[in-house]
Amino acid sequence: MRTHRIALIPGDGIGAEVLPAATAVLHAAGRRHGFTLAYDSFDWSCERYLREGAMMPADGLERIRHHDAILLGAVGWPGVPDHVSLWGLLIPIRRTFRQYVNLRPITVLDGVPGPLRTATADVDLVVVRENVEGEYSEIGGRLNRGFPEEMAVQESVFTRAGVTRVVDYAFDLAARRRGVLTSATKSNGIIHTMPFWDEIVAERARLGVTWSQEHIDALAAKLVLHPERFDVIVASNLFGDILSDLAAAVAGGIGVAPAANLNPEREFPSMFEPVHGSAPDIAGTGVANPVGAIWSAAMMLDHLGHPEAGDEVRAAFRAVLAGTAIRTPDLGGRATTGEFTREVVQRLEP
Amino acid sequence: MRTHRIALIPGDGIGAEVLPAATAVLHAAGRRHGFTLAYDSFDWSCERYLREGAMMPADGLERIRHHDAILLGAVGWPGVPDHVSLWGLLIPIRRTFRQYVNLRPITVLDGVPGPLRTATADVDLVVVRENVEGEYSEIGGRLNRGFPEEMAVQESVFTRAGVTRVVDYAFDLAARRRGVLTSATKSNGIIHTMPFWDEIVAERARLGVTWSQEHIDALAAKLVLHPERFDVIVASNLFGDILSDLAAAVAGGIGVAPAANLNPEREFPSMFEPVHGSAPDIAGTGVANPVGAIWSAAMMLDHLGHPEAGDEVRAAFRAVLAGTAIRTPDLGGRATTGEFTREVVQRLEP
Ligand SMILES: CC(C)[C@H](C(=O)O)[C@@H](O)C(=O)O
Ligand SMILES: CC(C)[C@H](C(=O)O)[C@@H](O)C(=O)O
Repeated sequence: MRTHRIALIPGDGIGAEVLPAATAVLHAAGRRHGFTLAYDSFDWSCERYLREGAMMPADGLERIRHHDAILLGAVGWPGVPDHVSLWGLLIPIRRTFRQYVNLRPITVLDGVPGPLRTATADVDLVVVRENVEGEYSEIGGRLNRGFPEEMAVQESVFTRAGVTRVVDYAFDLAARRRGVLTSATKSNGIIHTMPFWDEIVAERARLGVTWSQEHIDALAAKLVLHPERFDVIVASNLFGDILSDLAAAVAGGIGVAPAANLNPEREFPSMFEPVHGSAPDIAGTGVANPVGAIWSAAMMLDHLGHPEAGDEVRAAFRAVLAGTAIRTPDLGGRATTGEFTREVVQRLEP
Repeated sequence: MRTHRIALIPGDGIGAEVLPAATAVLHAAGRRHGFTLAYDSFDWSCERYLREGAMMPADGLERIRHHDAILLGAVGWPGVPDHVSLWGLLIPIRRTFRQYVNLRPITVLDGVPGPLRTATADVDLVVVRENVEGEYSEIGGRLNRGFPEEMAVQESVFTRAGVTRVVDYAFDLAARRRGVLTSATKSNGIIHTMPFWDEIVAERARLGVTWSQEHIDALAAKLVLHPERFDVIVASNLFGDILSDLAAAVAGGIGVAPAANLNPEREFPSMFEPVHGSAPDIAGTGVANPVGAIWSAAMMLDHLGHPEAGDEVRAAFRAVLAGTAIRTPDLGGRATTGEFTREVVQRLEP
């Protein structure tokens, strides 16, 4: 029996409530498909930061470097500035392990109505977000702190290698899907980095994929007006962050969206995490929606070489949402995290 | 009789079709309120660029520096890269004349249905966009052009003075409206400039305005889910660009949105322009929607000291849209630009 070693990082707030849901579902999927998962759990979190002054130990990244994958709950808590918590945990993992693709599928789920008047049942797109460079940059700082002439500078840095690999990934994915790629740009305003991005997209275009580019402002508007027109969207770190949240909201799935932080070359572990945050307002009440975590776990199964198991997990939570009223309060139901999860697990039992 | 001298820059495509609509309406408003407008028209455009190698003459900015306001149609045309056309005309005007506030009101218009299922009749917000610094920066460039190690760098630069003045403007505006300000940030990812932005917003907060900050990804999602909750949104150059297009789409008004580029101190002329582009696909067919240009002209009247005239213009085009079927094809009608404009003008006649 094949065993995959998984690093579990529950993190903060509801992170610790949704990961057990994900592992319960993974266990059921493993029984059907003849694999097991072995977990090591790490208490890296804002709580740890407040106690010990660091989100994770100095050798934290070493400790998870040889795992087959990382499953993360949520990071961030009131009282710890976001840039401290995120740059002390989530972002170093993405960067150190060269997880340069952040993959965010957005699909309308039956039984989870979206905000649009026109039918959005056809929305089925993937945002391929560059995940390790671009606008999220350590380079920059402040001058004349506290004085009238104070200023802050932040460099966006795009490398040819960094843009090429994510763009290639997106073209590949589009070729395996409906063959349509949209590149998010803003080369009319951001005149150094974005024309460079556009050039590389044009160079890497290939037969069989119809591609176009859209300025981020117009693209945001089109995602609201015609979300069904999109297949694969490739975007920089910042633009992908914005567009994936926006598209998830349009599809009705802002609380259930999954994400995979992929190192496609498999030199390092990839990381899977729901898009939602730690939700301090409901943490501890047992009603967190586990769909984002379960869906992320399904993406982990794809990555670990069990795509049929991943499909079954997706089919299972979709069936619960489409066929029953069992759902957590954020989706208008009254189920707890555990009740919903049990329904999903049941559908995966032999 | 007071006369205002206006610099008209039709620009490209439908720019030249919607400006005559705006001036016709302005003329009618002037007759009611006892002022006249005198125009100087400038052919600065992509056509000029293709003919003479520059979007405007070398002394272009000098020629319009002493006008009371600038009314611009649209800039951009296929065959001229966007960064050439925009940075050769629109952006130098914004910067040279210190138009540091880009004001974008977003209101649902009766008779112009939006894409949301839930009623959006209550949407009435204003995006206050920083308009001269931030992410749109000349600073940056390329290294190792054409080689595998090529990279592009773009600096975002935020100054204390630059952020403070636009934030103050936004707090003032919120105090005169419903007293709610939302600041767009991304200080969890953009760790040098955005925490600086957040600090200044917190420092400039004042009694009577309830304010909060939202990360741009979550804010984009909330604009789709609860647009009626927003009053004034203050945002950086890039974030304001994205959010104002997005909010206009949510409100159903992507083709009719207006913008004012303001120099609040009135050291220099302010500029008024519809948000839409030059629309090559319909240019020359006479069916461009003039509402964005007319609405922008109304904002110009506010700025020139005729707010009642501005209100009447707004009431006039709203009445046509709400009370008749006369509208251009983009809004589902069959009217030409001229037919719609005549209806608006009629409502302003004595
Ligand atoms: C054309 C472009 C440079 C411009 C901008 O982003 O400022 C436009 O989108 C706008 O919003 O006025
Ligand atoms: C928390 C934040 C730094 C992060 C990001 O912007 O990358 C989050 O929004 C995400 O999308 O994973």
